[in-house]
Amino acid sequence: MEKIPILKMGKFLLVTIQVDLYDRLALTLEEDLIQMVFKTGSKGVLIDISALSIVDSFMGKIIGNIAGMSSIMDAETVVVGMQPAVAITLIELGLPLSGVHTALNVEKGMALLESRMPPSLDDANDDDVD
Amino acid sequence: MEKIPILKMGKFLLVTIQVDLYDRLALTLEEDLIQMVFKTGSKGVLIDISALSIVDSFMGKIIGNIAGMSSIMDAETVVVGMQPAVAITLIELGLPLSGVHTALNVEKGMALLESRMPPSLDDANDDDVD
Repeated sequence: MEKIPILKMGKFLLVTIQVDLYDRLALTLEEDLIQMVFKTGSKGVLIDISALSIVDSFMGKIIGNIAGMSSIMDAETVVVGMQPAVAITLIELGLPLSGVHTALNVEKGMALLESRMPPSLDDANDDDVD
Repeated sequence: MEKIPILKMGKFLLVTIQVDLYDRLALTLEEDLIQMVFKTGSKGVLIDISALSIVDSFMGKIIGNIAGMSSIMDAETVVVGMQPAVAITLIELGLPLSGVHTALNVEKGMALLESRMPPSLDDANDDDVD
């Protein structure tokens, strides 16, 4: 029943994680997110974890999974709002979140995604038509 | 300890409510939000309640409070992502959320706020200087 909402913000998707993820919830989130990437054609996924003061190895794995799946679907993942203590824990747990971009807050994460988008693909297509 | 994160998205603030608000959490949210409006000078607050399948009279009151406080701080409040069942409940509870704008999703809520902003206030100030 419980679900983590996925918000479409322009070209990107935003997920705010506020509660501890347990197995079922994490699986639902992964599935919903991939479906949303498919349906909306989003090129970027922002995962806000500013509400989390603790990240365990399970959460680290889920974030890695989401990044991997999004990458296959041609979308990039940026984790934003990580608290300093969480960064320390992740490294101490041996989970450097490889393959995942990070940014200090949502705005910087969006700027990062924008900067990694190919320069106006639609315009290029228009040129091809000419 | 638990906190609902408030995300700054350009000119607006975004709050995603995913958990049931109890007294202390609601008070913290109200206080944090007003502080953020003050600090960032945001002109609009988006409250996403798409994760809520039930809204009780307490939640309705909190949303009304936030809208009232934001209004005093010269920011408008838009509630987005309301599920149909929630709309039915609110009316049956006799809580029509007066003074609160609503929109179907975050994107439409942002568009609504944009459309209600005074046309480029900064430009007007520049004209005054001339």
